[in-house]
Amino acid sequence: MLVNGKHGNLISIRDRGLLYGDGVFRTLRTNRGNVQHWALHYQKLRHDCTALGITCPDASLLSAELNDLLKHHPNGVVKLIVTRGEGIRGYAHAAHAIPAHIWDVTPLPDYPVDWATHGIRVQLCQLRLSQQPRLAGIKHLNRLENVLAAAELHDVAEGLLMDADGNVIEGTRSNLFLVSHGELITPDLSRSGVAGVQRDRVMAWAVQHNMPIQIRDVRLDEVMQADELFVVNSIMGLWPIRELEQRCWTSFSVAMQIRQAWAEEPTSI
Amino acid sequence: MLVNGKHGNLISIRDRGLLYGDGVFRTLRTNRGNVQHWALHYQKLRHDCTALGITCPDASLLSAELNDLLKHHPNGVVKLIVTRGEGIRGYAHAAHAIPAHIWDVTPLPDYPVDWATHGIRVQLCQLRLSQQPRLAGIKHLNRLENVLAAAELHDVAEGLLMDADGNVIEGTRSNLFLVSHGELITPDLSRSGVAGVQRDRVMAWAVQHNMPIQIRDVRLDEVMQADELFVVNSIMGLWPIRELEQRCWTSFSVAMQIRQAWAEEPTSI
Repeated sequence: MLVNGKHGNLISIRDRGLLYGDGVFRTLRTNRGNVQHWALHYQKLRHDCTALGITCPDASLLSAELNDLLKHHPNGVVKLIVTRGEGIRGYAHAAHAIPAHIWDVTPLPDYPVDWATHGIRVQLCQLRLSQQPRLAGIKHLNRLENVLAAAELHDVAEGLLMDADGNVIEGTRSNLFLVSHGELITPDLSRSGVAGVQRDRVMAWAVQHNMPIQIRDVRLDEVMQADELFVVNSIMGLWPIRELEQRCWTSFSVAMQIRQAWAEEPTSI
Repeated sequence: MLVNGKHGNLISIRDRGLLYGDGVFRTLRTNRGNVQHWALHYQKLRHDCTALGITCPDASLLSAELNDLLKHHPNGVVKLIVTRGEGIRGYAHAAHAIPAHIWDVTPLPDYPVDWATHGIRVQLCQLRLSQQPRLAGIKHLNRLENVLAAAELHDVAEGLLMDADGNVIEGTRSNLFLVSHGELITPDLSRSGVAGVQRDRVMAWAVQHNMPIQIRDVRLDEVMQADELFVVNSIMGLWPIRELEQRCWTSFSVAMQIRQAWAEEPTSI
């Protein structure tokens, strides 16, 4: 646990991360002292900070702190939060605000092994995501919609979220892919949702393997008729979907190809 | 500064208020050791906690802490935050989560006196509020839209916010009222916005004074053609609007009647 470079697990009650959710975060998986895809995560962090006008801490500073953290916590889930820091009272922020950055480490979740190989059960959430183009794609700290959606889940591994217009957007904590007629499809995230690092990695895999990929609006009936469905995030990796609203899938061919390709990649900081 | 009943200005980095904005808040004005409209604020706090499934701290506990705070800070802005507290990793929350509650006091802002009497300049914000019926009306900690809107303001006292459908909703930190043809009108907040205590007080004043009041969708052209406009919140009280997007108003008759009525009310906890 590091707060602004110092050991500790406390932050000021005047930090704008608490007051307004005025910040961004990343969730990383570490394995035997290595963190997976740190360069990609830092790139996203920097992008998200810039989108909110927050000064992103330097890569060299964060890399050094992360390496130090890995010595004591070789395996686990590492969360990195960057907030706009403390400021004057009110929503307006000073241009010279000094951002805060926070590291936390928790144990790896104990997911059933067969979720990765035999697929997961997924529930369609009642909550509909709002549309906000200014915040879409960003992994920011305003996550009440995800909290409300997660509270709906009952005996399933993930929940699927639609927006108010009926577009399917993402999982409560993952990005969604469809395989249809030999093409990969993933929802457009320009109005809602979080664009995760693993989503980019799936798209990169598709390009490498000459598999057509579309990023566009996706309706529920298209999801239900897909040949294959899977979700990805940095902790779960990739999980095929075997059941969604009474429909079952047994073909995970593309999902397994990607899992296989990822398993063969070297893991490195 | 009190955190869970103890003097201090720090909170855990695992508090869900920071991680997800999973909490609610109130902003109170104190005057000579009295806090204005505490009963109304507590009622809203409890309502908002219930809407998010957070256990609201007892009124007696909060009142006792507030009284203690007032002894040392008789004048100022008191902020009360209630979060869902710490929890397991991830968006899902345990049913038995123990909420955190935080008090902070800052000096009263130094607003120009004539804003209350001669009105304020207001700017129409570019940012459009998203629509989320599950969170609308609640004074929750997901306030990035307000942060982005406030960053747009230039040399004005307040910014006016519309939703994506072109409905006028509220100020960046206040509720809006129109006076048109002898009626009071305030925007419907069932899809966006925060329903503040002072909004209720204006509506109560209207009922007492037999002035018709409508709560409904409001378009921008209606705002521009209103006979009078004003905004309210617990710190500013009531400010008439004298200028918005090149239009000017000089009649503040209803605004002044309400200000007068409020000034004559006894202030009490």
